[in-house]
Amino acid sequence: MNKIINVGLVQMYSTASAGDNLTRAAQHVRLLAQRGAKIVALPELFLTPYFCQTRDKKFFDLAEPVPGPTVRVLQAIAKKNRVVLTTSLYERAGGKYYNTAVVIDADGKYLGKYRKMHIPDDPKFYYGEAYYFSPGNLGVPVFKTRYGKIATLICWDQWFPEGARLAAAKGAEIIFYPTAIGFQLKARPGINEAEHQAWQTIQQSHAIANGVFVAAVNRVGLDNHLRFWGTSFVADPYGRVLKQGSVNREEDILVACDLNLVPQMRRDWPFLAARRLKVEQ
Amino acid sequence: MNKIINVGLVQMYSTASAGDNLTRAAQHVRLLAQRGAKIVALPELFLTPYFCQTRDKKFFDLAEPVPGPTVRVLQAIAKKNRVVLTTSLYERAGGKYYNTAVVIDADGKYLGKYRKMHIPDDPKFYYGEAYYFSPGNLGVPVFKTRYGKIATLICWDQWFPEGARLAAAKGAEIIFYPTAIGFQLKARPGINEAEHQAWQTIQQSHAIANGVFVAAVNRVGLDNHLRFWGTSFVADPYGRVLKQGSVNREEDILVACDLNLVPQMRRDWPFLAARRLKVEQ
Repeated sequence: MNKIINVGLVQMYSTASAGDNLTRAAQHVRLLAQRGAKIVALPELFLTPYFCQTRDKKFFDLAEPVPGPTVRVLQAIAKKNRVVLTTSLYERAGGKYYNTAVVIDADGKYLGKYRKMHIPDDPKFYYGEAYYFSPGNLGVPVFKTRYGKIATLICWDQWFPEGARLAAAKGAEIIFYPTAIGFQLKARPGINEAEHQAWQTIQQSHAIANGVFVAAVNRVGLDNHLRFWGTSFVADPYGRVLKQGSVNREEDILVACDLNLVPQMRRDWPFLAARRLKVEQ
Repeated sequence: MNKIINVGLVQMYSTASAGDNLTRAAQHVRLLAQRGAKIVALPELFLTPYFCQTRDKKFFDLAEPVPGPTVRVLQAIAKKNRVVLTTSLYERAGGKYYNTAVVIDADGKYLGKYRKMHIPDDPKFYYGEAYYFSPGNLGVPVFKTRYGKIATLICWDQWFPEGARLAAAKGAEIIFYPTAIGFQLKARPGINEAEHQAWQTIQQSHAIANGVFVAAVNRVGLDNHLRFWGTSFVADPYGRVLKQGSVNREEDILVACDLNLVPQMRRDWPFLAARRLKVEQ
């Protein structure tokens, strides 16, 4: 069976205008769909600037129900372009706030959500997310889309092998990581490069450990104290980076993923089957 | 406090003569100790050829109690050279057989053992270990040595992030992986390199995810269907490879490891502290 699926990553910047961000996102999705993309991912919280670099009560106004107004727009975009669509949004629910990934099928159907479990909170507010988000309480769901089973974990989750393991154990063929990560502007010789390389290495390792594709879609551009480092990429189940974006340009990245490699790799290297230590959801 | 510890890896081949292997291992330990090594690791099952490439009842004769005769020799070597020593041995116990790592302190004291949990068993008998070894039943212990807290997982364990996570959660500062992994002699264009790179990537990822040093010590040389690929290495808590051995030479690799980096990294990148999914022992 042909299971070669074109995955599209929208590596983009976000401005203070949600309308502008949504318009550009829609253009990128359309262009990727025209090139054959079947599953398209947008960066973490693409609708807004990365507001977690300061504490300001006003930013809670950016939160919305999920599903809600933005999901409805994304559903229309997915349906019009016949693509599966995933990203993260700022969700409010029951007086709480979450960083929430959504998955929409290629017919526009809303398939569900995942709430980011691992919330970074450094002392200097490069990624001061604990003020804005509660840790996710929905476990690690997997979504059966028209073009494959996918999971969408979010940014800091990418440093924790447990989430990827659960996603794969539940059948994910591709794990998406909508991301907003960048270099601190303060010079730290050697450290920036080490962190950037580690970010790629650990996600490659999830592909290897689980026999899945991993797709990281990051922002670019300067935003307050961070210069987002782009370099969105897709790794195959060997951990090989198939294609990678630039460090500084808004661009569409289209990657053909042969999903037949997932069962094939898991038989050659049965790490998922042979694991003897259980990760608890 | 000065916690810069010199780690020595003995990248070696093994012949059919246990006496020869033990003599060469002792020479390497002595040379490394003379150069300042404080913790020295030998490859997986260094005492014997890698017999798991065929099924033959005679190889069960190679098993011994642990602690037992070889541990006593290793204790003498450790004490004489004032180094912590770790490797794996073929253990028999209660009618069962295990691939068992031992840790001996720098005064020659036997500190304990770990039994390999993940047993590879491919259909073509490159690594046909299930005939020879039961899966380990001792969990993932951590050993407090004179020169740091260490864990010793074994070869195929290195593909499973859960073991490294448990070791780090119990306080390991360095995780050792005595290893016997190599290239199949049959030509597989592209695959050999992909597997070799993945082997390094996944171990680097354990360093990153847990803020620990990772030390992989592998065999070299041709043995039946495998050409062991050497390239023993130590990665720091950023996942950076500090030093790496050749692909084909028996050699000693000495690496200065600043164990102060362990708590430092775990504060800059608190992945170990912030994890929200539990690995069950």
